[in-house]
Amino acid sequence: MHLRRDDGRSPQRGPAPRAGSPRRPCQVGRPVPPLDDEPASRRRCPIQTPLIRQGRIGEFELIRCLRRATAIPHGVQASVLAGIGDDAAILKPRPGRVILATTDLLAERVHFDLAFTSYRQLGYKAAMANLSDIAAMGGVPRFLLIALALTSRETSRDVEAMYEGIRAACNPAGVAVVGGDMSASRTDLFLAVMVLGDAARRGALRRSGARAGDRLYVTGTLGDAQAGLELLQARKRTNSYLITRHLMPTARLKEAQHLADGRLASAAIDVSDGLAGDIRHICEESGVGCLIDARKLPLSPQLRTHARARKRDPIAYALSGGEDYELLFTVPPAKVARVEALIRRRLLRATPIGLITPRRQGLRLIGIDGSVRPLTAKGYEHRLG
Amino acid sequence: MHLRRDDGRSPQRGPAPRAGSPRRPCQVGRPVPPLDDEPASRRRCPIQTPLIRQGRIGEFELIRCLRRATAIPHGVQASVLAGIGDDAAILKPRPGRVILATTDLLAERVHFDLAFTSYRQLGYKAAMANLSDIAAMGGVPRFLLIALALTSRETSRDVEAMYEGIRAACNPAGVAVVGGDMSASRTDLFLAVMVLGDAARRGALRRSGARAGDRLYVTGTLGDAQAGLELLQARKRTNSYLITRHLMPTARLKEAQHLADGRLASAAIDVSDGLAGDIRHICEESGVGCLIDARKLPLSPQLRTHARARKRDPIAYALSGGEDYELLFTVPPAKVARVEALIRRRLLRATPIGLITPRRQGLRLIGIDGSVRPLTAKGYEHRLG
Repeated sequence: MHLRRDDGRSPQRGPAPRAGSPRRPCQVGRPVPPLDDEPASRRRCPIQTPLIRQGRIGEFELIRCLRRATAIPHGVQASVLAGIGDDAAILKPRPGRVILATTDLLAERVHFDLAFTSYRQLGYKAAMANLSDIAAMGGVPRFLLIALALTSRETSRDVEAMYEGIRAACNPAGVAVVGGDMSASRTDLFLAVMVLGDAARRGALRRSGARAGDRLYVTGTLGDAQAGLELLQARKRTNSYLITRHLMPTARLKEAQHLADGRLASAAIDVSDGLAGDIRHICEESGVGCLIDARKLPLSPQLRTHARARKRDPIAYALSGGEDYELLFTVPPAKVARVEALIRRRLLRATPIGLITPRRQGLRLIGIDGSVRPLTAKGYEHRLG
Repeated sequence: MHLRRDDGRSPQRGPAPRAGSPRRPCQVGRPVPPLDDEPASRRRCPIQTPLIRQGRIGEFELIRCLRRATAIPHGVQASVLAGIGDDAAILKPRPGRVILATTDLLAERVHFDLAFTSYRQLGYKAAMANLSDIAAMGGVPRFLLIALALTSRETSRDVEAMYEGIRAACNPAGVAVVGGDMSASRTDLFLAVMVLGDAARRGALRRSGARAGDRLYVTGTLGDAQAGLELLQARKRTNSYLITRHLMPTARLKEAQHLADGRLASAAIDVSDGLAGDIRHICEESGVGCLIDARKLPLSPQLRTHARARKRDPIAYALSGGEDYELLFTVPPAKVARVEALIRRRLLRATPIGLITPRRQGLRLIGIDGSVRPLTAKGYEHRLG
């Protein structure tokens, strides 16, 4: 963990951030119910002034605070030989497993808006998006590192809140926060999260394994996060389910484990850019086409209500809405019965939505009226929220 | 590798970057000699328009380009089961070794200035800073991931140049670029680099192992990078050695390996924040004090010339100048003879600069005049450059 003393006051030729620039309001009273976690006051740092202006002062206090805030979950303790506080974390791999590594960067005013995202939700979502990448590989997430670039607006309380959110995402999954970096940013807040996981040597799910004839499935429901973002942008708190789906998504770790353990899926990806965007990745990497049945896309009742009120097609949300973090996976014909059995036993909440086809047939969609046409919907373009 | 289609054009309430805002000049003709590497034209992407404005177009082309630009070095190929192009990289750990993980984030106008840093140098330095963290743990770096937040100013050629710089830092060290993330930023360019390495189970060098009586050593020379930054900021190209030390530092990987293999060091850290700042980390984590002899600090002739011209004390550069990326390490008395033998045999370029003392004696400095006083110099405050 590096905690740098950059304070952004060095001689600059670019414009300095205006000292009097209005602070974007940060939602203190959270728009969704608080996480079921121990009270923030238990881990509160003594430092409450804006962090970056502190310079050297408080550096060691902050390290101590973060060490407390990122206590290693019980199950993974033996694997963390050194966590926060050195040049690098020292981690023990599990014998016979391969390592999975992924990173995701979130930028203020591009991926999130502090007007309707609390720091805690932000930390939670940044962590969860990375856990979801590990899920999409059929892996078990184990360790997380986070690099923060803080503006002069963030206080140490805000930083703590971000870490609380990260911890709330990590703890149930048995993931340890083992390191990171903290430095200054001139205008916007940035979070770069890295997650390390592991998987059985031959159990990792690639994007490239889909073959013509495989059945296409997706977990959960689609389009909810996009609808939640619209509500937040319209300042409407009318549907907490959709808003929670946007602000605090859930990585499908258990589902991924069922698929990996039984070696049931031939390919997988998490739906972060929207179904239409992410199926393209599978098709491109696997060299195949697909036929998606719009009539089978899993839609929540809340999304249907939302779309009706906006006089929009709920299918469009399901195809183009991003950040649902559901798993999109393909199943070879010989394994469909086992997947269906898991679904019946409610061990896997997933829906068959189409087929993998030969590449020459391209990406196609069966519309609500039963007609087949090219899949033209685009993936999610923006991530503000 | 996620390559998101965020183009920063989503509805925003914050001010959008002005379309006509002047582009900070990026040094195309490099201020230091170009790296000895294959010509950039060999790996040039067909896309030369600003990346973020392209939206979806070119995404797969860019992935293909980056896969080419980040070809896996020979020695590490067998360990990379999947690199760029999936939800996570799949990596094979070496049996019996522990994993080291570190991350460092670089922000434009805080850590670097594109007016005097080329994109290639930026990529090189971002990678090297992380390799240095692995060196400071006595480890071998193996895999690198990079998350970029690009503004509308960066072209795909700029992105390629960053990757070339990363590769130029990684290839000689046998490090594979295995993944990353690419998204948009509203104002400044950000690079978050993560490096995974490994070390012998008990060979990792912690900050916390120093004991009173240990000898304190540092590799190379100190203060050069700070002097190089001053020259760049003053637009003086008078001393290419100092400028190169700032723009293109070298992680002390071989030195670290000698120390780790022989289990010669009790503690180590890389000098990224300046000697005075980084010795504090060792003292705090180890619960000890130190006595540094200013007369013994290793100074380059170039730094002495630079300091003389500026009528400044070269010792101040050595104590407070950051980003030298030298190794600061402590050696127990029983192992000093072996370290001195390595130095004599020129396998380790290091200088003894002081002693570890009991904690109650605090951090002290022997001045040029031989008088002992508290070590009051501060670490490096800014990283612009």
